[in-house]
Amino acid sequence: MPDVHRLTVEQLSEIVVDIFARAGLCHSQAHTVAAVIVAGERDACKSHGIYRIEGCLRTVKAGKVRPDTDPELHDYGAGVIQVDAHDGFSTAAFALGAPVLAERAHKLGIAAMAINNCTHFSALWPEVERLTDEGLAALVMCPSYATVAPSGGTAPLLGTNPIAFGWPRPERPPYVFDFATSVAARGEIELHRRTGTELPEGWAIDAEGQATTDPEKALAGAMLPFGNHKGSAISTMVELLAGAMIGDLTSPEALDYLGTTALLPHHGELIVAFSPKRFAAGRPGDPFARAEMLLEAIAGQGARLPSQRRFTARGRALRDGIELTSAEMDSLERMRKFGLDVVN
Amino acid sequence: MPDVHRLTVEQLSEIVVDIFARAGLCHSQAHTVAAVIVAGERDACKSHGIYRIEGCLRTVKAGKVRPDTDPELHDYGAGVIQVDAHDGFSTAAFALGAPVLAERAHKLGIAAMAINNCTHFSALWPEVERLTDEGLAALVMCPSYATVAPSGGTAPLLGTNPIAFGWPRPERPPYVFDFATSVAARGEIELHRRTGTELPEGWAIDAEGQATTDPEKALAGAMLPFGNHKGSAISTMVELLAGAMIGDLTSPEALDYLGTTALLPHHGELIVAFSPKRFAAGRPGDPFARAEMLLEAIAGQGARLPSQRRFTARGRALRDGIELTSAEMDSLERMRKFGLDVVN
Repeated sequence: MPDVHRLTVEQLSEIVVDIFARAGLCHSQAHTVAAVIVAGERDACKSHGIYRIEGCLRTVKAGKVRPDTDPELHDYGAGVIQVDAHDGFSTAAFALGAPVLAERAHKLGIAAMAINNCTHFSALWPEVERLTDEGLAALVMCPSYATVAPSGGTAPLLGTNPIAFGWPRPERPPYVFDFATSVAARGEIELHRRTGTELPEGWAIDAEGQATTDPEKALAGAMLPFGNHKGSAISTMVELLAGAMIGDLTSPEALDYLGTTALLPHHGELIVAFSPKRFAAGRPGDPFARAEMLLEAIAGQGARLPSQRRFTARGRALRDGIELTSAEMDSLERMRKFGLDVVN
Repeated sequence: MPDVHRLTVEQLSEIVVDIFARAGLCHSQAHTVAAVIVAGERDACKSHGIYRIEGCLRTVKAGKVRPDTDPELHDYGAGVIQVDAHDGFSTAAFALGAPVLAERAHKLGIAAMAINNCTHFSALWPEVERLTDEGLAALVMCPSYATVAPSGGTAPLLGTNPIAFGWPRPERPPYVFDFATSVAARGEIELHRRTGTELPEGWAIDAEGQATTDPEKALAGAMLPFGNHKGSAISTMVELLAGAMIGDLTSPEALDYLGTTALLPHHGELIVAFSPKRFAAGRPGDPFARAEMLLEAIAGQGARLPSQRRFTARGRALRDGIELTSAEMDSLERMRKFGLDVVN
């Protein structure tokens, strides 16, 4: 395979950080956005890999994110920490608040962090893993753009509202899930449109609110939540907790604010951290050991635990390097050289 | 309708409390178990109404719940409160801990209560509403019995693991959802068996782990989680947080412990309370008013908000009384008179 370039995590990080630094991102933002993108490539999670750099640059160029601002922590010593991203990327805010959140969860048993005023960019699983690394369980959620109709509804209102959870496992990668509360991602519908194939039933409605399997009509209409009314209820919970409750934008407000889904959204995020050690204090058995019995029983049935594919890819990348094609390397070089000029 | 008896909430409460008191439940248990059952009848939620009394009595008679013990609170002033039900019903433990949980959530912004060592009896929505009444958002979950296969699995392992959420609304009933993480309830499969009708696809697998629409085979096999791998992941989260983390039984352990699904299960429960006032402190707008915009937009699409049917029934019952048939009245009288002798 002459077309394959192998880079270490450090090598790829250096390139991506350099692209963002040249595009005007300050240290705290360039390093944290780059870390998510490199983690995506490392874990073969290409949907959050280097192809996302352009979207970040486009949002910078459009003046919809402040690339040169540091986040600010508001902490009154209670169970809730607020981090104001000052209109910068969410990743810098998370990085600033995470150690304080972890300390507080260890101390109180449960604690939460609200990120406000951010341009949201990140898969949620890197954040979940930051907390499982500290021996904490974590529940993370955020709104997005109004592109999903509530169950029984007729028009876009909810976001694809991702929700992620992690549980630390001794001597192995954590239990982690991270998924959209829509039945499919918008990109999947777009893919059906390009290939001219019908959508599975239950994915979408058209602009009149009628069920459709036509990808064109679906893109003009709305996506549907996973699991019918149950997924719709969970998605609504995400809007309430990670939008209204933290005093930040819900998905319809985020869409109004930006007026397009072509740039990264501006809203907030909620992260809840639990200390199993504190919750299990005085109770029989070790909570981590007891969880293993359940997780091993799931795997023992041949059922795949979520994120296993990512962890396998990670092991390979850490051993053999991250593989990029020549086209990908060229694209990185072009973005490094021309910065914001490569995007519209 | 000559067969209809109308009772006030107080009248029905008095009868149900009396039944439980005569069956040996102490004051704290008799009143709290009765309150859930009366709330079920009041809200036309018959699945948690008076027909559940027999199951409670059967569990008492089998010696699988301690009816005469008061719960005990362990509170170290942090964000996590533990309530030991001392093998009594969960409802008494919840009632004891709820005011402390609410006080702590108001103070810290977020707090959690773990109920341990309980025989679990309650829909989760009455507990959610207890907290929304205090201006708090609440997330509640518990395991049950291993009757559900994980997505991609072949045998029962997870419980039907209910999850419930509530958000307080000004001047009207709260936003509340409460559902099993299995695609259907076991009772619904049983109903198909009795009527000899096929199950919808995706509800269950047989004892060999193969998809089935045969209710007999489904009952001998396993139910499936809602929303495929996503619902399965959420159900696993319930096992981890409300089982392993709080040092209490997971669904397979709860089934092992009791050896039957014919009696009420013994395990724990997790309740998380959030103070929107604290989370939104210093942020623009009122979180409750902002939430209304979203909830009204959902209802404005003609989509039903969860629990609306219950709230409508509640309004009717509070106005016109709770309607019971003569057969139901006879059954109550029989249980009052003969107590534990009416059950096997």
